[in-house]
This record gives sequence, C-alpha cells and structure tokens, in this order.
Amino acid sequence: MDILVVGSVAFDSVETPFGKADEVLGGSATYFSTSASYFAKVCIVAVVGEDFPDEHVEMLNSKDIDTRGLQRVPGKTFRWKGRYEYDLNQAHTLDTQLNVFSSFDPTIPEDYKDAEIVFLANIDPELQMKVLDQVKNPRIVACDTMNFWIEGKKDALKKLLKRVEILVINEGEAREFAEEPNLVKAAAMILGCGPKTLIVKRGEYGALMFDGKSVFSAPAYPLEDIFDPTGAGDSFAGGFIGHLAASGDSSEANIRKAIIYGSVMASFNVEAFSLERLNSLDKDKIDARYSEFQCLTHFEGI
Amino acid sequence: MDILVVGSVAFDSVETPFGKADEVLGGSATYFSTSASYFAKVCIVAVVGEDFPDEHVEMLNSKDIDTRGLQRVPGKTFRWKGRYEYDLNQAHTLDTQLNVFSSFDPTIPEDYKDAEIVFLANIDPELQMKVLDQVKNPRIVACDTMNFWIEGKKDALKKLLKRVEILVINEGEAREFAEEPNLVKAAAMILGCGPKTLIVKRGEYGALMFDGKSVFSAPAYPLEDIFDPTGAGDSFAGGFIGHLAASGDSSEANIRKAIIYGSVMASFNVEAFSLERLNSLDKDKIDARYSEFQCLTHFEGI
Repeated sequence: MDILVVGSVAFDSVETPFGKADEVLGGSATYFSTSASYFAKVCIVAVVGEDFPDEHVEMLNSKDIDTRGLQRVPGKTFRWKGRYEYDLNQAHTLDTQLNVFSSFDPTIPEDYKDAEIVFLANIDPELQMKVLDQVKNPRIVACDTMNFWIEGKKDALKKLLKRVEILVINEGEAREFAEEPNLVKAAAMILGCGPKTLIVKRGEYGALMFDGKSVFSAPAYPLEDIFDPTGAGDSFAGGFIGHLAASGDSSEANIRKAIIYGSVMASFNVEAFSLERLNSLDKDKIDARYSEFQCLTHFEGI
Repeated sequence: MDILVVGSVAFDSVETPFGKADEVLGGSATYFSTSASYFAKVCIVAVVGEDFPDEHVEMLNSKDIDTRGLQRVPGKTFRWKGRYEYDLNQAHTLDTQLNVFSSFDPTIPEDYKDAEIVFLANIDPELQMKVLDQVKNPRIVACDTMNFWIEGKKDALKKLLKRVEILVINEGEAREFAEEPNLVKAAAMILGCGPKTLIVKRGEYGALMFDGKSVFSAPAYPLEDIFDPTGAGDSFAGGFIGHLAASGDSSEANIRKAIIYGSVMASFNVEAFSLERLNSLDKDKIDARYSEFQCLTHFEGI
C-alpha cells in the first residue's frame, strides 16, 4: 500500500549539548517520509518557499518519495529554531517562522486520492481535515498533533479524531488532551473520542499502545550517543506506518511489530543531526536493530 | 537461600492527590522484607523505638520474617513525612526524624552471618559496610542508596561498591553518581566501580539492567489507580532478591526474570497506602501479574 503524508518541510536550526546545526533540512513530513521510504512508497504533501534548494527535492526523490504534492510558492520556507539541554526529551523552541506555511492550502495529486494509508503529521487540525476531505476511502488514517493545537483548536481536533484510526502523540500531550494525569485513564478517554488505537510516545522511555483491550509497552533503544532528538517522533511514525503499509496488516500483533519498527527508526534518527543517519540506512541495518530490540526486552516465562 | 536485609523500619506520613495516611508502617527494610517474604525467608536487621507496637512485629513474623535482628531501644522510631503531586515519580520530603536511627549500630543474629544473599537497603553506606563486615561469605550482595549519600558520603559509598555484586538505584541517582547525563555511559562508569550488575529504577517507566554485556529493559505495569508510590523501590528489590534467593540462580536470564518479579511487586505496592496491598497477596496473584508482564511486552520476530 502507498502512503500519503501531509506535514511540514522546514529548515531547522538546532543546538544540543553535543553540537549545533544551522538551517538544515527538517520538518515532520521530511522525517516521516524518509523513514517510511525504507518500507513503502510515500507521497508527500507540503509547501516550501523559493529558497528551498533542488538538492533536497532530489534527495527525497532518490528515496523514491513522490514529491508532486510538494508545492513551491513565493516566499520563504518554514523555519524552526530550538535548543535541547541535557534532558533531551524536552525541546525548547527559540523561534518559529511559519513563512509560506501560514497560507498553505494542501492539494493532493489526483492519483493519490485513492491512498489507503494517510498520515496527518503535526499541523493545524483544520489543514489535516482538508487533506482528509480530499482522500476517497482510506483504510487507515493516522495522525499526530501537539500541545499548541490541543490548547488552541481542541474542537477542530476532536472533530478530526472521529475520522482517525490511530493517534500517535507524546505522553504530555495525551495527559493534556484528556485533562487527566493518569495515563491509563487518559488513554481510555482519548479512545472514546474516535481512534481505535492510541500510541503514546515517551521519548527515551519508549512507547505505549492502548486499544481498549490490551496494552503494549515498547522500550526505547539505550544509546550511548544521542546527538539530536529532532524528528524522532516523525521517524517513529514513518517506521510504524511504513511497516503497516508494507505488510498490509493492521492486526494488533502487527501493530506491535510496527511500533518496534518505529522505535528502530527513531533510535537511528537521534544518532546524528538532521536526516544524516536516516539517509544512510538499509533494510539489513533496520532488521538488525529490530532483533536487538528483541534481545533488549526478552525474558522467560514463569 | 535465606536473605539478610538491613534498612529502616519507620512510621510514614504520606499525602498524595488521592488521599493521606498518618504514621503508618513504612521503612525500606519493612517494604523489602514483606515483598521478599513471598519468595524466601528473610531476616531483618533494623532498629525501632519504644513506641513501636507489637502488632507490627507480629505482622512481620506472620510472614515468616525473622525479626531477631530488629532492635528495640529507648527513644522514638524513625519518622518520614512526604508528599507526592500528580507526578508520582517524585517524592517531596516534608520532614525526617531519625530518632533511634541516629545511633543505630546494626548487629547480625549469629546464625545469619552465613547468609548467602544480603540486601543493604538505603541507609548510611558506613552502616551498610558495618553489616557486610559481619557476614562471612555471602554469594550475592546487593545494595541501594540515594542522592543524600551520593552527595555526602561518596567515598564510603565507592568503597562499599567494590564489595557489591548488584546495585539497584534510581535513574537520577545513577546519573548523579556517575556525573554523566547519558545513562548508557553512566552505567559503564558505575560498573567500573565494582558491581557486576546495575539495575536502574525508573518509576512508572520501569527498569533497565546493565551488566557490561547486555541491556534489559523492563516496563512498569500501567495502572489505572496509583495511590501511593512510597516503598515501590524497596518492594521492587524485595521481589527481585526474593526470586534470586528462591531460585538460587544468578544467571543473566534469571536476573531478567527477577527484575520482572520485582516490577510485579512494585506494581502491587503502589495500589494502596503503606503495606496494605503487599500484605494481601499470594503466589498465584503474583504469578498472574508476571504473565501480564509477558503480554505487555510481547512482540513477534521479523
């Protein structure tokens, strides 16, 4: 199955205790599609400005990512500037320049209106809905969001969630959306809003999956060198949705496997700035780390 | 194998968002030994004051816990007062009264000097050493500590660690002891100080085991109702050491199982104030939750 993703393509400037990167390629749709490209074909819907270099588009195309839905319009590309302290779970936003993103009107290439899997990366829920309205009959709709939209556009988000099968959000956002500190209770409340499956991302603590019947706890891979957590959540979503698309199987058992593939991709992503590490992978490296996740979590029965 | 534990027996006053408890039975040795009593015989070395009621001693004895090493001396029992906010991972100490603990001189009952497993719960590392000096030839020495001793008695702690096989500490304490924010690097540094195995407790995020060759990640059990996290770490240690003692097997594979038993006991403990829930268990309930940990973490191979 092919994947349709809508999200941001951006220039990121990032400082961590281990170094800094200026105006490097970033954005949720970029991380997502690069990660997912190792599993399935992805069509990206996003907007960039006149300052966006062809080489970045060529890089995406070299991964067999369909960029016909990447609009290039007058103005400057979206920019994000952030800093991480030693607690790499917490991004501190220093500056956000929406630029061409402020008037983004997503348009889906005609032959992608039949997409069976849609990932709505973290953008305005009204834009996410606009994308969904153009897709004919998707089998799986997954989406991400953030505190900014939970606080500012909760009604639009709630309307969207009725049409979403899988919600993938951070732990703090799950608690904030549900207005409930206990994660198990928060998950039950969120599942009541529409999604069949909730995946809670917990940074270096891994991820939890709730579907109303069972709970799955996935660890994060313990890394000696974490350079830059930017894009970890979108790389996770890329591996997760990528595996679901490649297998065409959305059973609970396969969702667990997909979560591990997502965790694998996130673990690679944080090893370098921007898409440096994600770009240097192949299926063997990905599968080798998948096996390491098995070693990491295995214990014998009673 | 029998277990020898030295630690505190205390009266705790605890406030959480879900209720409060005044002057209830607590202390690291109490939680540890109650938890471990479901697995093996435990001998407790601690001190209480004249105000300590017989019924608490009888409760411990009813669990087949050997209390001959529980000294009763003139003065008042150790008291701790703390509060938890909605973030139940973080205890805020409101008051500590050492009382009889300030002049505690631990003495091991003669027939426990042959103990094969010793757990040095979180007390002054000089007292922990004093206990260790009285034990003849233990097969496994495990210990816990806290930021207070890391900051105030690091040299004594380092000296102790040379004689410790298994160190069980909190995540923040591991980072603080190693003066290293990255947990994988911190673990390598700590293993270099003596312990063969390091277990890092992460509260609601579970536990990590490092032994220099492999890493094991155990989840915490996602609970809908967490009433009181007091004693969770000591209940964890009780289940962990208890399983090692009962099986007489300290292989890596069995240490993983022991960590899950520790996680099971911690998950029960937080469901009620004081030892209420820990006291109401049996081996079937414990094994049933062990199986739930398997469901929680299972995923298929590639």
